[in-house]
Amino acid sequence: MSSRTARVTGGGEQAQARPELRREENMERRSPRGRARKAAVARAPAFLFDLDGTLVDSVYQHVLAWREALERGGIELSVWRIHRRIGMSGGLFINALSRETGRPIGAEKARRLQEFHAHAFRKRENDVRPLPGARELVAHLSRLSISHAIATSGRMDGARRPLEMLHLGSDVPVVTRDQVEYAKPDPDLFLAAAARLDVPIETAVVVGDSVWDMLAARRARALGVGLLSGGYGQDELERAGAYRVYQDPADLLRHLDELGVRASA
Amino acid sequence: MSSRTARVTGGGEQAQARPELRREENMERRSPRGRARKAAVARAPAFLFDLDGTLVDSVYQHVLAWREALERGGIELSVWRIHRRIGMSGGLFINALSRETGRPIGAEKARRLQEFHAHAFRKRENDVRPLPGARELVAHLSRLSISHAIATSGRMDGARRPLEMLHLGSDVPVVTRDQVEYAKPDPDLFLAAAARLDVPIETAVVVGDSVWDMLAARRARALGVGLLSGGYGQDELERAGAYRVYQDPADLLRHLDELGVRASA
Repeated sequence: MSSRTARVTGGGEQAQARPELRREENMERRSPRGRARKAAVARAPAFLFDLDGTLVDSVYQHVLAWREALERGGIELSVWRIHRRIGMSGGLFINALSRETGRPIGAEKARRLQEFHAHAFRKRENDVRPLPGARELVAHLSRLSISHAIATSGRMDGARRPLEMLHLGSDVPVVTRDQVEYAKPDPDLFLAAAARLDVPIETAVVVGDSVWDMLAARRARALGVGLLSGGYGQDELERAGAYRVYQDPADLLRHLDELGVRASA
Repeated sequence: MSSRTARVTGGGEQAQARPELRREENMERRSPRGRARKAAVARAPAFLFDLDGTLVDSVYQHVLAWREALERGGIELSVWRIHRRIGMSGGLFINALSRETGRPIGAEKARRLQEFHAHAFRKRENDVRPLPGARELVAHLSRLSISHAIATSGRMDGARRPLEMLHLGSDVPVVTRDQVEYAKPDPDLFLAAAARLDVPIETAVVVGDSVWDMLAARRARALGVGLLSGGYGQDELERAGAYRVYQDPADLLRHLDELGVRASA
């Protein structure tokens, strides 16, 4: 109890020190209810979101763009196998391809395939929409001053338009493939996102639609939460370590209390 | 033992009665090994195959074609929710749509949506390929004289090109939506296919990629076998009643012995 009070007081002092004190923080310092709310928020987990299939409805377009790119590169692979690889690092995807097709893929060929994919995805980009509840979820977290960030295996170039759709606050960190050495299922993206938020990774919730997100969350020692909106089955996500599985961002928003967010009313 | 012998003899007599006696049947009557094989085949289950996602790699194209059709009709629905409805009857799909969007969809609107889908799918039809092992599987069953048929919730108009890719024998029955009152998950399509083959449905194996196939199989009292090639997870298919789940037709072909096909060497 004392440590909680100390944290609230600490927050208040910091706020006082800053010249641009927000109205909300002012209210919180004034009323006992506001102070209780601030305490709850200080103890709420930070949220680290995957992008494709988690906040924007783009997985199936990526899948068929990869299908087109691979066929252009002379590689036949069933579409469902591509689906199950979306969200993992491009390098690992190419490794998996080599194994599943039984043919080695050199660096130059890998580079060309990625180019073919980017080209094929651009043709489909106009069909991509935010997932139901995605905007409302990030807006709700912002309103509660709950830290959140985006961590995607995609490159900034491809992520720009989906990110614009979400109307994120300007203070929400976005970590892309370009900024880390290894993408998912390595933990780097989520570790970098937690560092940008200045929160301990152990108290963060990683929200993703693929088993690669869940594996990266485990390796980062964060709590993994799955969404069905990327097309994986609930059991696949649970077996990969998801603590809870929700249908989509709207469903997660309705159940934030299950993740320890007290002020989600 | 006596009934098995009787069946073999019966088969031989029938063959003798027909003027166009095939070389294989001749051989079978001549050698003890041929007779044993004939007996095994007579006891092998008949196979009733779904088409999209089971023998041809067309599910993801259907999914995005539905996405385009619904948006053209002013209906927003996440792509993964469409994916999980593929393979069920169009009428039930429209029912589910009404529920999930909270807006009733009349008969005229339903008809237009189906038209929009057919148009959107035709644009993607050129990208559809047979699934790995599909041609080999049906050719193998033909070689062993094991009865097999196709039963699809799609209409003959849309099924013609995928069917051509499979190089089916001219004696393989194809039952489409046009020929039954209710599509999957009603059992009608599989019951009609078994009737066309003149085999008891209780001894038939239904092979499909969706939970609607598995539900229809149960209602028909056939044995359901799932394939992952339509993008469902293994657990989803098992929970829907799949006795076994294989990756794709090639994987099923390698494991035919698990389904009681003795002569699969």
